[in-house]
Amino acid sequence: MTILPVAVDAMGGDQAPGEIVAGALEAAAAGIPIVLVGRAADLGGIKGIDELPFIEASEVIAMGEDPAQGVRRKKDSSLVRAAEAVRDGKASAMVSAGNTGAAMASALLRMGRIRGVSRPAIATPIPVPGASPTILLDAGANAECQPEWLVQFAQMGSVYAQTRFGVVEPKVGLLSIGEESSKGNSLVKETHELLVSTPGLRFVGNVEGRDIMTADVDVVVADGFTGNVVLKTLEGGVKAIIRALDDAFDSTPEFAAAAQGLRPALDVLYETLDPDTYGGAVLLGVAGVCIISHGSSNARAIVNAIRVGQEMVDQGLVASLRAAVGAG
Amino acid sequence: MTILPVAVDAMGGDQAPGEIVAGALEAAAAGIPIVLVGRAADLGGIKGIDELPFIEASEVIAMGEDPAQGVRRKKDSSLVRAAEAVRDGKASAMVSAGNTGAAMASALLRMGRIRGVSRPAIATPIPVPGASPTILLDAGANAECQPEWLVQFAQMGSVYAQTRFGVVEPKVGLLSIGEESSKGNSLVKETHELLVSTPGLRFVGNVEGRDIMTADVDVVVADGFTGNVVLKTLEGGVKAIIRALDDAFDSTPEFAAAAQGLRPALDVLYETLDPDTYGGAVLLGVAGVCIISHGSSNARAIVNAIRVGQEMVDQGLVASLRAAVGAG
Repeated sequence: MTILPVAVDAMGGDQAPGEIVAGALEAAAAGIPIVLVGRAADLGGIKGIDELPFIEASEVIAMGEDPAQGVRRKKDSSLVRAAEAVRDGKASAMVSAGNTGAAMASALLRMGRIRGVSRPAIATPIPVPGASPTILLDAGANAECQPEWLVQFAQMGSVYAQTRFGVVEPKVGLLSIGEESSKGNSLVKETHELLVSTPGLRFVGNVEGRDIMTADVDVVVADGFTGNVVLKTLEGGVKAIIRALDDAFDSTPEFAAAAQGLRPALDVLYETLDPDTYGGAVLLGVAGVCIISHGSSNARAIVNAIRVGQEMVDQGLVASLRAAVGAG
Repeated sequence: MTILPVAVDAMGGDQAPGEIVAGALEAAAAGIPIVLVGRAADLGGIKGIDELPFIEASEVIAMGEDPAQGVRRKKDSSLVRAAEAVRDGKASAMVSAGNTGAAMASALLRMGRIRGVSRPAIATPIPVPGASPTILLDAGANAECQPEWLVQFAQMGSVYAQTRFGVVEPKVGLLSIGEESSKGNSLVKETHELLVSTPGLRFVGNVEGRDIMTADVDVVVADGFTGNVVLKTLEGGVKAIIRALDDAFDSTPEFAAAAQGLRPALDVLYETLDPDTYGGAVLLGVAGVCIISHGSSNARAIVNAIRVGQEMVDQGLVASLRAAVGAG
């Protein structure tokens, strides 16, 4: 067990710093060591904050800022400092709900890649009611990909499904537009051939969008453009349906009364479908644990993200990735 | 008003010929002229079938068959004959729930393209609770696309949203992984530049997956790989959520009783979300109306598809597409 703290970027996210600090405090109260990273001037007065270890960072990379430029110019930003804390052995993992691209760039530039990994990828758990989530990757780190990268995504996703959700031999599918290996774009066709001959993977072939939210597959591999579109499409779809359900149930007093009786069942389902439940995505392939939470993260999402970060450190995620993919 | 019949492929679909013929009979009873296309030997004995005009086709292209090969070799197949009926002025439109690729190829090879159209695209209505559906195209005709084709998809989708759903100035979005024009893959970046300078379009910029099921956009343009993945991801997501709702509501007698009171509200919502409600997709860019229904279509889906086909003929869809996109 590590005793290093999890570095939490206090400045990143739509609800920063309030909800972020609240989440950090809650995690600390639950016994997870935390170090907050941020600009003290912006955090003063938040109740309880003085109890947390702190790393000062005088700059902030804003949500809409160009990631590469932000990381290059703002060397004293909370994101860069959080990544450096992991690199320098002052923190076990980093958690941020800030600018996704900048979080990726900070982790990549400061922690570096696992040797042998061509490109890190964002792995996001997609909820599957009644089963463990499906790991979708790349969910947005690389808008354009080479077939060899997707093979590594398959390997890393497989390790992550094992480490995070205890799936023994994760079923890995390649996202396409038909199960036949002859279908898809050229990236998918070339990747399919490579995956078939990659040892140590349980490759179940091409899968379609409709398979993602089922137990038929544990890991779905896609280029970062397609993966990100899928992720946001599902988020939007879930939101639209839940809103439509709530509207329908509110439309007459009779429906509202009946819906009241179903609240406990609905709440369980809504929680399953809520992206905050899983605490966000992880950047796989960098030489450290980097959790990237949803920009809209509230305290609960941050607590969950910190838990995941801590757990992935304890379970030796990076070492397992290195063993599965790395070149030494 | 046309008096030509709609040609219905009796042989295509998971539930063919029974459900297809049932749908055709229902549409005919509602006053829409129909001509069935199929292999008489397989249809004999279906009740009421003798009342429908008929075009004999001795061959069938199976659901899993290679589309190009199927159309090339099976010149007397129901799909090819249905497309020829439209070409030859014997039918106003064709409807099939069969092999999607073969339906596209039949329409393309027999009807031909609208002059000036580079590639036909599949346009699918995505349900938006409480608003008119969003038209998604290309939903799978072209796995790999050029930027210029996507511009034409935008034009054709815009015409379709007007013609089909009466949207006056359809808001057209380009599917990407961020609203910024700097984000996305190279296809999206190049297409964005072209769309900005295309006259006659209400281009609202890049949209994300989460925007599809909202009223913020009326037409979403994507390459056929991404579009098809999105379509199937949403179908799978909707199915997973409805199944989870039903399971939750069945989990205790109390929930089941409460859910009973909500049935009318749930049924309306489920109907909105059911792909059969909109009768399927249309192949835009060929010189005739070609409706491609879901492989799982039942009689209701076929009736709706026939209605859409008839309506698109009456509304002059092909002429409008020619005016908007065509070269003469």
